Amino acid sequence: MKTEILRMLRETDGYVSGQELCNKFGVSRTAVWKVMNQLKDAGYEIEAVQNKGYHLLSVPDLIDKIELSSIRNTGWAGNEIFYYESIDSTNTKAKELAEEGYPSGVLVVANQQTAGKGRRGRVWISPKGTDIYMTLMMKPDIHPNHASMLTLVAALALAKGIRRETGEEVQIKWPNDIVLNGKKICGILTEMSVQFDCINHIVIGIGINVHNESFAEEISDTASSLFLESGKHFHRAGIIEAFLEEFEKTYAVFLETEDISRLQKEYNALLVNMGRQVHVLDPKEPFDGKAMGVTNKGELIVDTWESRKLVSSGEVSVRGIYGYV
Amino acid sequence: MKTEILRMLRETDGYVSGQELCNKFGVSRTAVWKVMNQLKDAGYEIEAVQNKGYHLLSVPDLIDKIELSSIRNTGWAGNEIFYYESIDSTNTKAKELAEEGYPSGVLVVANQQTAGKGRRGRVWISPKGTDIYMTLMMKPDIHPNHASMLTLVAALALAKGIRRETGEEVQIKWPNDIVLNGKKICGILTEMSVQFDCINHIVIGIGINVHNESFAEEISDTASSLFLESGKHFHRAGIIEAFLEEFEKTYAVFLETEDISRLQKEYNALLVNMGRQVHVLDPKEPFDGKAMGVTNKGELIVDTWESRKLVSSGEVSVRGIYGYV
Repeated sequence: MKTEILRMLRETDGYVSGQELCNKFGVSRTAVWKVMNQLKDAGYEIEAVQNKGYHLLSVPDLIDKIELSSIRNTGWAGNEIFYYESIDSTNTKAKELAEEGYPSGVLVVANQQTAGKGRRGRVWISPKGTDIYMTLMMKPDIHPNHASMLTLVAALALAKGIRRETGEEVQIKWPNDIVLNGKKICGILTEMSVQFDCINHIVIGIGINVHNESFAEEISDTASSLFLESGKHFHRAGIIEAFLEEFEKTYAVFLETEDISRLQKEYNALLVNMGRQVHVLDPKEPFDGKAMGVTNKGELIVDTWESRKLVSSGEVSVRGIYGYV
Repeated sequence: MKTEILRMLRETDGYVSGQELCNKFGVSRTAVWKVMNQLKDAGYEIEAVQNKGYHLLSVPDLIDKIELSSIRNTGWAGNEIFYYESIDSTNTKAKELAEEGYPSGVLVVANQQTAGKGRRGRVWISPKGTDIYMTLMMKPDIHPNHASMLTLVAALALAKGIRRETGEEVQIKWPNDIVLNGKKICGILTEMSVQFDCINHIVIGIGINVHNESFAEEISDTASSLFLESGKHFHRAGIIEAFLEEFEKTYAVFLETEDISRLQKEYNALLVNMGRQVHVLDPKEPFDGKAMGVTNKGELIVDTWESRKLVSSGEVSVRGIYGYV
């Protein structure tokens, strides 16, 4: 009921009458009044005017189940939300839930991670209350060999979601970092459990630096936050919801062909590497070249002076004003 | 010390002198005598002759850490052995150990599984003491897209190991079942945890029906055991060790090319499907054809009357005397 009342308050321009709420939920005036007080305690600013009803003035920057559910507008993505004030890693939790039998679409969100994971065993710095740490769990019926493309699908959806919600012109650094003014503000860690020819589950872990005001000196040249780059504080739940909506749409397009041929153009348009010098840390031999976009399989096309190469793994840095990032 | 003494008893044709053992391990006669009694209690038949020493007459059909370690003759495979009298699933345990940071090569063995897993969410019947349930965990530095071939590598190693240890002419049913007289006696369940372009870990779970004397009626046409097909009882630890040795060798060949081009011939020679009518449960449309072996990527080549098809997923049944198996 709390979620539904909050949703009604959000969706009503004027006032929501107390009597209307009583009738809708079959409860007393006192019960409605209690919910309003709980919401106020949580940080929602609610005005109560006699003979008119309740009116929502402002919302706090929460990302808990009530807040996310009250703005949820998706089909399968986030069909069940697990929120934690603090957790080791949202990816680890999402994998556990998958093994326990939870269905595709579960979203794990945390306000803090004590053992946040980055790619290749690195740490993802996850302070309390400033950023977004979330993992979407899926059990898709696609071939395992096609699944690595999902990380590009997620990057595209994330870039579009952030652009829509914040107006900031974020870009994608291949394969799946999101950058703003050339600095990394989001990372995606996709992990997958596979049998021979079928997928047990995939978890798409996303960290977004939203309000973060400082980074360790070692990474401050390359890492930043939406706040540091734009000077604005954005509503975290809005960004999460925007991502989920964009992901559902983008994923549906991916499923049509089980590759990114119909997303390629849009992805390339947001690709920060596009047309720029890149340095490819190929496991066999590093090389330099010019990035020319991605193929329909998600490989990065890199032209060197002697040949065209397709990069499907390894790390790629982009030449920027401050050298390679 | 117990493992080492057992190994010496095994490797010595005549008698191992008590004094020699005292010197070797720097312990008293009583300490040696205690170990001998422990081994006898575990089921090892040991003869003690005055002025000659100890002699091993027979070994019990154990698959615990002591027994497996005393015959272990491999490099990395089985570098650490976890034995359980009963466990839910050796694959689940191996995945946990991988996540906890254990290195490549850990072997999990159980005498019983309470939630044994087969492919595609099926159950693997795992009664106590009769069969082999084991999982080899690896953290290989290969591309995730090449990893599905490991299940064929495992099948080949398993077929070779069983042939060597038992003399029974088992065959492979694509991709990774082991059959004897056309009936399934082993199954392999490979599960993998992957990031975008690197593997967290792979677990290769293997169930081998060794002494099993009966199967449920529903599966008795297709499932069997080494005992039922050969009339003989084989030593389970010997089969495990033979598999590990063959797997190390076969895997090293796989690594040379990261595909099965150098194993193809050997695999095809053991393939029960070879040259026979098969029914392919293709997810899109089932079809029939003649199996012509595997490609260097491990796909099954199936010739239909109109074209040659490469099967990389789905299930394939083979036409036998009793219909399709």
